[in-house]
Amino acid sequence: MKAFMDEDFLLSTDTAKELYHNFAEKMPIIDYHCHIQPREIAEDRRFENITQIWLEGDHYKWRQMRANGVEECYITGDAPDREKFQKWAETLEMAIGNPLYHWSHLELRRYFGYSGILKGDTAQEVWELCNRRLKEASMSARNLIKQSNVRVLCTTDDPVDDLKWHKRIRKDESFDVQVLPTWRPDKILHIEKSDYTEYLKKLSKAADVEIQNFQDLKNAIRKRLEYFKCMGCCISDHGLDFMVYVPAEDEEIERIFSDCLQNKKISSKDRAKFQTACMLFLAEKYEELNWVMQIHYGCKRDNNRKMYKKIGADTGFDCMGDVTSGTALADFLNAVNERKNLPKTILYSLNPKDNELIDTVMGCFQDSDAVGKIQHGSAWWFNDNKTGMVKQMTSLANLGLLGNFIGMLTDSRSFLSYSRHEYFRRILCDLIGGWVENGEYPRDMKALEKIVKGISYNNAVQYFEFQV
Amino acid sequence: MKAFMDEDFLLSTDTAKELYHNFAEKMPIIDYHCHIQPREIAEDRRFENITQIWLEGDHYKWRQMRANGVEECYITGDAPDREKFQKWAETLEMAIGNPLYHWSHLELRRYFGYSGILKGDTAQEVWELCNRRLKEASMSARNLIKQSNVRVLCTTDDPVDDLKWHKRIRKDESFDVQVLPTWRPDKILHIEKSDYTEYLKKLSKAADVEIQNFQDLKNAIRKRLEYFKCMGCCISDHGLDFMVYVPAEDEEIERIFSDCLQNKKISSKDRAKFQTACMLFLAEKYEELNWVMQIHYGCKRDNNRKMYKKIGADTGFDCMGDVTSGTALADFLNAVNERKNLPKTILYSLNPKDNELIDTVMGCFQDSDAVGKIQHGSAWWFNDNKTGMVKQMTSLANLGLLGNFIGMLTDSRSFLSYSRHEYFRRILCDLIGGWVENGEYPRDMKALEKIVKGISYNNAVQYFEFQV
Amino acid sequence: MKAFMDEDFLLSTDTAKELYHNFAEKMPIIDYHCHIQPREIAEDRRFENITQIWLEGDHYKWRQMRANGVEECYITGDAPDREKFQKWAETLEMAIGNPLYHWSHLELRRYFGYSGILKGDTAQEVWELCNRRLKEASMSARNLIKQSNVRVLCTTDDPVDDLKWHKRIRKDESFDVQVLPTWRPDKILHIEKSDYTEYLKKLSKAADVEIQNFQDLKNAIRKRLEYFKCMGCCISDHGLDFMVYVPAEDEEIERIFSDCLQNKKISSKDRAKFQTACMLFLAEKYEELNWVMQIHYGCKRDNNRKMYKKIGADTGFDCMGDVTSGTALADFLNAVNERKNLPKTILYSLNPKDNELIDTVMGCFQDSDAVGKIQHGSAWWFNDNKTGMVKQMTSLANLGLLGNFIGMLTDSRSFLSYSRHEYFRRILCDLIGGWVENGEYPRDMKALEKIVKGISYNNAVQYFEFQV
Repeated sequence: MKAFMDEDFLLSTDTAKELYHNFAEKMPIIDYHCHIQPREIAEDRRFENITQIWLEGDHYKWRQMRANGVEECYITGDAPDREKFQKWAETLEMAIGNPLYHWSHLELRRYFGYSGILKGDTAQEVWELCNRRLKEASMSARNLIKQSNVRVLCTTDDPVDDLKWHKRIRKDESFDVQVLPTWRPDKILHIEKSDYTEYLKKLSKAADVEIQNFQDLKNAIRKRLEYFKCMGCCISDHGLDFMVYVPAEDEEIERIFSDCLQNKKISSKDRAKFQTACMLFLAEKYEELNWVMQIHYGCKRDNNRKMYKKIGADTGFDCMGDVTSGTALADFLNAVNERKNLPKTILYSLNPKDNELIDTVMGCFQDSDAVGKIQHGSAWWFNDNKTGMVKQMTSLANLGLLGNFIGMLTDSRSFLSYSRHEYFRRILCDLIGGWVENGEYPRDMKALEKIVKGISYNNAVQYFEFQV
Repeated sequence: MKAFMDEDFLLSTDTAKELYHNFAEKMPIIDYHCHIQPREIAEDRRFENITQIWLEGDHYKWRQMRANGVEECYITGDAPDREKFQKWAETLEMAIGNPLYHWSHLELRRYFGYSGILKGDTAQEVWELCNRRLKEASMSARNLIKQSNVRVLCTTDDPVDDLKWHKRIRKDESFDVQVLPTWRPDKILHIEKSDYTEYLKKLSKAADVEIQNFQDLKNAIRKRLEYFKCMGCCISDHGLDFMVYVPAEDEEIERIFSDCLQNKKISSKDRAKFQTACMLFLAEKYEELNWVMQIHYGCKRDNNRKMYKKIGADTGFDCMGDVTSGTALADFLNAVNERKNLPKTILYSLNPKDNELIDTVMGCFQDSDAVGKIQHGSAWWFNDNKTGMVKQMTSLANLGLLGNFIGMLTDSRSFLSYSRHEYFRRILCDLIGGWVENGEYPRDMKALEKIVKGISYNNAVQYFEFQV
Repeated sequence: MKAFMDEDFLLSTDTAKELYHNFAEKMPIIDYHCHIQPREIAEDRRFENITQIWLEGDHYKWRQMRANGVEECYITGDAPDREKFQKWAETLEMAIGNPLYHWSHLELRRYFGYSGILKGDTAQEVWELCNRRLKEASMSARNLIKQSNVRVLCTTDDPVDDLKWHKRIRKDESFDVQVLPTWRPDKILHIEKSDYTEYLKKLSKAADVEIQNFQDLKNAIRKRLEYFKCMGCCISDHGLDFMVYVPAEDEEIERIFSDCLQNKKISSKDRAKFQTACMLFLAEKYEELNWVMQIHYGCKRDNNRKMYKKIGADTGFDCMGDVTSGTALADFLNAVNERKNLPKTILYSLNPKDNELIDTVMGCFQDSDAVGKIQHGSAWWFNDNKTGMVKQMTSLANLGLLGNFIGMLTDSRSFLSYSRHEYFRRILCDLIGGWVENGEYPRDMKALEKIVKGISYNNAVQYFEFQV
């Protein structure tokens, strides 16, 4: 029997241990997709207590507290921080098998030096220890990033964002981790939303382009893309409910856009046409700019309207979607490829039933533009657990080249989430080590080193062409 | 190598064995969902032979016999019981990896004391042994329930049912197991069926309400709900082909209902609207009554029309459905929640591809009304096997709080099926024990006891608020 | 730790080893579904080098080379064979966990006697060894088939094919492996394709029937079916994008067919009606002829139009589809069954999310016409790997009778692919051996021998009624 979360946590074979400790463990981190606030890096934020850094914005934890019957005042409400922490500690006991159990204890071990178990009974001692540690300078936002060995960190930013915090970080020579913006134009696509024209005004102002028609919109986008490029951006990201591919003539898109400006109701078919037109335009731009295009789909957001009205978006009320997307995904990628050329592309579905489909779609668009030009993104959000990672990597290995995988990202708002890279690497090494010990791949340490270091770090550096 | 089905069957680690034998094994059973005929309990049915108790109504076994090329006369026809049993024994040999192999041998061990292997060659000795045992008083319906340590047993009942057998059981003080009805109003929803008006007449009579319009229907339902409540019912159940959510105005529902009464053909869209209206109404009532709402979806019934004409429904010709239901499921739950409040709800899909989706939908509607207010129901029917249970519990653990799971139900017509609770508990303990031995959860026996006893029994008692 | 691919490759328990080496290993092969060119058998093709036999037509390998960033000239282009082989060897290093890694090394071991590892560094020695071996007479097409212990081999043939190579093989008494044609009428269904009338002309000529209407088409089909039957055909195969079931009156089908002959555009609804009518007609014929009907669905073909225009179909640009097919599948099978009777049927979906659904649909149509009348076909194409096979067999075992499974096929264009039967049998024995060692099935060697030999060979002989 293995001890709870010891140094060989999740490493069940000798080869797995060797791969992890010799190759994966010490590699730096490329966090090419996260939701950290650049302002918190610029201001080198400090945290007063463990509730602030753990529970302030983490809807993963909020969901589990609700599943434990905890009242909302202890979750997003105004109960005292100590009491909120107590409720979280009690919830954690029931979370057997949940990645939060592992993440929480990894974070306690790696950042706070606590090697015990967090539960109701120990909440007080953990509270005291963590808060004491948080007073230390090493626990500021920047120092947490540095001690985590992060080399590049890509935030998630709206096209209208002025990126002023990014500017400030760039100017500050005391912080040598690359912090880059990511272009996330979701709001440009949602023509059906009531606040769309409001958003257009912001975009118009940011781009200094009057937006009267779809051509204007594209011009405004072009200008913002240029600005993001100047700021070091080389990655785009799209969060789509599901894939659509409904091509339409330019005139029809202009008509739809005009309907929107006149506050007419947009049908779901028109919405699909508009989304298709935008995505085709954007993908073409990414290819010209040599940016990577990330597409995340399979998410249904804000399902609990009662809570949405109370506390807004991104508060733990999203779920997977299961709208059939395979045909549209393949047809969209083909259309981009036919018009000109596909940019480097990373595909993610939130619904794990799509793993194999994605891996086979990818295989239709690989070419010599890049090694692993089309990637199946790492197990994500609801799949960011051992099961999800093993499924994603096994499917990728069965249907593509696992050796070229660009690996893990945090997708997190927290400065402690880098331990998810450790979690991922342990699972990766256990998977590969298991194959080796089972006689399914030779125990060729040179080849294995290349593969493990590649997936941990090197492949991402090469793929995104980062200068590190 | 482990011996075949010994006392540590399915328990592959020491921790698993400890968890099972110390905590799970001796807990009583709450069978909150089964299809036992209350009449057979009231009359304390006796069985003449093993074919009667095993093969008379078990379409699980019938399907496998057909898959073995057995002629229908030996399955549902009039071949002699001994010959039917022979065909079943021969079929079982080919059923390697099938839960029926395990269930059958568990039942032979636990209820008949037979520790050999059932196959063609041994059918005669098993036939003789079982039939001899069935003559004993301990093998009556009630005694089988008692010796299985069942505390509460919920049958499945139509709203028009007079529940007379339930009444008789309640009055009889010699039987102290709680036998409660469950409200299963599937027939109320199927407005498109040719015998719908026939059913309305029965409902009208049972409720003593003339049903001329949808308002009347709701009144009739209200009265039957009251009656079921008086009889101790606290759970509803719905068997839906797939989820729909198509809200409509009251007037439109009245128009649809009126069309039905006039024998007009009901379109599938109108059917969806009617089903939505009924489900919204019912869910609201359940919340008022503090009943639990069970929703089963993803089943396509009576697929073999030739056989349906010969031997009717529930004879082994159903299959999983794969109609995309995620959006409708989330939107329906939200609508109930917005109108007033969601009752406690248990969600089941027959298609295992929906596991993860369900777990994420659930997370959007948890609140402090109850611990684990929204539940992902146990692996069910076609998923009631080791693979299905491990998948359901792993998904639940990854995305929710496994510790709050209300656990197993039999969903069975047989008095021998309580060994499925044993099967479930072994798999549960093996899963958790494996995590502990792999260092993924601490070997904290107090915490593990709470979790294992909870999932085996205590959580269900607390969730349904049974007085035991 | 096991050595890389030793004699106990993939066999992780003693029982698994015993089952494989004593029972599975020596059984002959029935390859009831492949894409070998009968001409190459008739002419007893010889290969000049390893690139010819490995890379000439294998789009599985081509996809992985593209995923490794290899330029197309080294894949399907005119780079020298030695250089192509080098690129493949380098690609293989990254293919950890991919079945190609195992297939390639199995083929090197079994046919070329090479026990090392193929990678960039060893490509030259492998190139030399293989090319030397390929000069030996034992490495001709026929001798490869013979040394692989193949008894029956079914190719894939279009209804218009004159089967002249099959004739020549039949006449040649020096080759005693049965080589039979398979009826694959995909082109008859694709009424929406621009070259459909072109195809009709070929069919008209082959059948010597003028085709002016749907009745004529059916007459032409009848004549070709008779011809195929004379040539020993007893299996049909259908490759469908997804299942449809949209029944229509004869007059409507005639109207649709007439629209097609007049070059009118065929709507997707009309296409579905036409496909349904053809499939119903064909299934009825198969039943009359006592042929087995294979249905493959869930494939979306030719997704990369740019490459399609350059190098055509079947070049590695297909993917899984996820169009919901469950309802149509069950309804189609029911319709065939109701009209008269279902022929023996083998169902395959390319999307593994359909495994459980297929197994439950099957269960609705089993009857005493044959043991295992409806089969869930072996894990196929993108699923032809350890994960896919384990999933397919586990699902089949959970929901049906694994013991009656007719087992593996190659689905391959290559004469070296028979080692995939070895791969399958090892996985089968490991799965079953694991159950036995885990106490889930008795260690009854007689019963296990029957099951393992059955799935390896005997079940297929019995099912297809081959005379071997």
